[in-house]
Amino acid sequence: MVSRPPPNHEHIDEEMIKIEVNLDDISGEWLGYVMDKLFEAGANDVYYSAIYMKKNRPGILLQLLCSRENIEKMKEILLKETTTLGIRYYPLTVHRMERRFINVQTEWGSVIVKQGIQHGEVFQSSPEYEDCKAIAQKHKVPLKKVYAEVWKLIDQ
Amino acid sequence: MVSRPPPNHEHIDEEMIKIEVNLDDISGEWLGYVMDKLFEAGANDVYYSAIYMKKNRPGILLQLLCSRENIEKMKEILLKETTTLGIRYYPLTVHRMERRFINVQTEWGSVIVKQGIQHGEVFQSSPEYEDCKAIAQKHKVPLKKVYAEVWKLIDQ
Amino acid sequence: MVSRPPPNHEHIDEEMIKIEVNLDDISGEWLGYVMDKLFEAGANDVYYSAIYMKKNRPGILLQLLCSRENIEKMKEILLKETTTLGIRYYPLTVHRMERRFINVQTEWGSVIVKQGIQHGEVFQSSPEYEDCKAIAQKHKVPLKKVYAEVWKLIDQ
Amino acid sequence: MVSRPPPNHEHIDEEMIKIEVNLDDISGEWLGYVMDKLFEAGANDVYYSAIYMKKNRPGILLQLLCSRENIEKMKEILLKETTTLGIRYYPLTVHRMERRFINVQTEWGSVIVKQGIQHGEVFQSSPEYEDCKAIAQKHKVPLKKVYAEVWKLIDQ
Amino acid sequence: MVSRPPPNHEHIDEEMIKIEVNLDDISGEWLGYVMDKLFEAGANDVYYSAIYMKKNRPGILLQLLCSRENIEKMKEILLKETTTLGIRYYPLTVHRMERRFINVQTEWGSVIVKQGIQHGEVFQSSPEYEDCKAIAQKHKVPLKKVYAEVWKLIDQ
Amino acid sequence: MVSRPPPNHEHIDEEMIKIEVNLDDISGEWLGYVMDKLFEAGANDVYYSAIYMKKNRPGILLQLLCSRENIEKMKEILLKETTTLGIRYYPLTVHRMERRFINVQTEWGSVIVKQGIQHGEVFQSSPEYEDCKAIAQKHKVPLKKVYAEVWKLIDQ
Repeated sequence: MVSRPPPNHEHIDEEMIKIEVNLDDISGEWLGYVMDKLFEAGANDVYYSAIYMKKNRPGILLQLLCSRENIEKMKEILLKETTTLGIRYYPLTVHRMERRFINVQTEWGSVIVKQGIQHGEVFQSSPEYEDCKAIAQKHKVPLKKVYAEVWKLIDQ
Repeated sequence: MVSRPPPNHEHIDEEMIKIEVNLDDISGEWLGYVMDKLFEAGANDVYYSAIYMKKNRPGILLQLLCSRENIEKMKEILLKETTTLGIRYYPLTVHRMERRFINVQTEWGSVIVKQGIQHGEVFQSSPEYEDCKAIAQKHKVPLKKVYAEVWKLIDQ
Repeated sequence: MVSRPPPNHEHIDEEMIKIEVNLDDISGEWLGYVMDKLFEAGANDVYYSAIYMKKNRPGILLQLLCSRENIEKMKEILLKETTTLGIRYYPLTVHRMERRFINVQTEWGSVIVKQGIQHGEVFQSSPEYEDCKAIAQKHKVPLKKVYAEVWKLIDQ
Repeated sequence: MVSRPPPNHEHIDEEMIKIEVNLDDISGEWLGYVMDKLFEAGANDVYYSAIYMKKNRPGILLQLLCSRENIEKMKEILLKETTTLGIRYYPLTVHRMERRFINVQTEWGSVIVKQGIQHGEVFQSSPEYEDCKAIAQKHKVPLKKVYAEVWKLIDQ
Repeated sequence: MVSRPPPNHEHIDEEMIKIEVNLDDISGEWLGYVMDKLFEAGANDVYYSAIYMKKNRPGILLQLLCSRENIEKMKEILLKETTTLGIRYYPLTVHRMERRFINVQTEWGSVIVKQGIQHGEVFQSSPEYEDCKAIAQKHKVPLKKVYAEVWKLIDQ
Repeated sequence: MVSRPPPNHEHIDEEMIKIEVNLDDISGEWLGYVMDKLFEAGANDVYYSAIYMKKNRPGILLQLLCSRENIEKMKEILLKETTTLGIRYYPLTVHRMERRFINVQTEWGSVIVKQGIQHGEVFQSSPEYEDCKAIAQKHKVPLKKVYAEVWKLIDQ
């Protein structure tokens, strides 16, 4: 969903920003929509936490990660689609590991697996959710059975 | 804040009800207000939890405890002040311990302490928050210092 | 999304059940999937809360509401798609208000509005999210502007 | 509640600080009190999140935003009123939009509405909660009805 | 940790109780301790949720499941170890699936795996956490590697 | 549990780092384990919050505080023991108050109390949890009674 994904080799990215907004006058319905808009516009990640705000208000802390050059695009969406008049942010460093994508053949079709590599060794293997979900729905098997099958087929 | 408080002797109350409402289209601002209204109308307790609802919506689960005879009053407020069209509830049993209220004299004034009694013995002593708060504000002492002082003066 | 929706007139439903499952050995990825499956199979509502479980584990409490006749279908999905070996449930009463659906014409197209009725009076008007979302996306207007427009056009 | 509010024109504020404290040995009663004290002393915002801490402890993460010159005042309160011995903080940037305040006449009295302005255009209109609450209580109308009325009267 | 565990064959248990307590005047430190005490005394499960209580208080909802005959034991601990003066509860039904325990030999030692059985078929396999943890610590391998190994060795 | 604790006199530490990881494909069981590993390796604090992630996923935000020189050790554990391929971090300032440890003699044995000192004055006294817990278990007294006794014996 990310418009310009980071490269696949191991690298340190110093150009990342975390944006935060506190919201106590917006409904959950709208927040579900806002998350999608932010991803579509190139946010690297977006997530909410429940917070306790003044006057006994359950509120939401919206957090998002984006590259510095995307700040203005994110602000634009936050102003248009949420109820905030103020947006705060600060820089952070992201260390991304080398990743590669392999293809695993299951009895129901192929699944992409994202692998994390360090010192030439695979330390992580994550079956792509969308592939597994498509198989689970098409073949009417439990999702967890699809994952289990993929894990078995990987030489971890 | 409760309109008709339960009696102070130990008893089992079989006439209590828990009411629940899921909310995904209301703001935190309104929810702060609703809580007060429900207490004023005689709810024994009201509390919110953050929940994950469909379509990526952060929602709120409103729960309240009231006696069976108060159900209609509670429903009325929930319909008027929240955005729900459905209200669910079920009975529960409440075991309330014997409680008594004693007066503790601190250097800044008196504080009511609520005590829990079982088999004639005090197993719990809770200084009243509003009393301690009033002292903390008037005498400009930290709230925790007021509590500490009260605890010292109680023969626990 | 509900397979057999409750009727639109005001009624008390005594045939509802709440099912609960505690989960500490399942990933968030799978839980997103499970929620959809339960709705598709006829759950009236499904929601998660974050809970603190033993051994310092962040866990999830899955709750769902369904009619008594759907219990077996729900159990089947929970066993197949989650990691639980035990499912608990209890009956509850649901009071549902009269609801009717009206059509509101905005400058961008029509939106269904769900209204709550009590004693012949409208006490609640909720624009349908999917209609508003479709307009927001097609006409590239902020979602909140679509809602604001609909609210203006309703004689609340 | 903020002692020295930021200006109303659009501006970037580079002098803001976020302070954080983790708390696992304080009661909810005291935390309700601490929030008020921090706002009174000039915090721009204060909010809590529930966190999972070591040894199976549900804890609270207290976060607050203040200007750099207020750090010492905030620390003082945190040490006096909470149980922490350590306070952490870091700078952040706040982009605040132009805001103006208009007066809306409802059938029950006037309500201040805070509006957000960008490129000379209103993109946000928030009725002041305290005004709406006062009307709701005095005229015994649901709070949501007051908001709905105000929204209708604004030329958004 | 449960004193009298339920039987391993599939069964419906109608003798289960859920106990609930709201807490806003107790610290996280004590709550970590209380959970262990309740498990030791025979609770089938104990878990906390963060709740929003009156007067801006972050509170904790303690929930526990136990058999009807254990209610008094649980109450005793709740009164002694928490700050509550009232305890509420209601009955629920638990449907437990057939479970059996198999032994899986890994390169580092054996691991018990709990399996769920329905219609004679294994639909669930959960490696015992304590076994995997002991191996991970003794052999200095990542815990997830131990689980992955066990899953591979099971004929799921 | 911290490998190299900060000094006991009041100081400002500019060499602290906060590391964050978002997790939506890991179970609660593993997260309980990871927390211990991070503390053992010298993290100053580790804590989780429940977050709402894309595709309706309940996720966990892992946060930890460590000194700059420990970053690599922490990354190593996060890669080995969690499912992440990316780790983000940023510097923060920690103001730690002067602390000293005194010994309090109760009727059941001695308890260490950590005290916070400012301008030569004690503003905080925290009985050590592990000492109180050991007494509570050995002498079969409620934990809260042990704390109450220690507080009484301290000249606060």
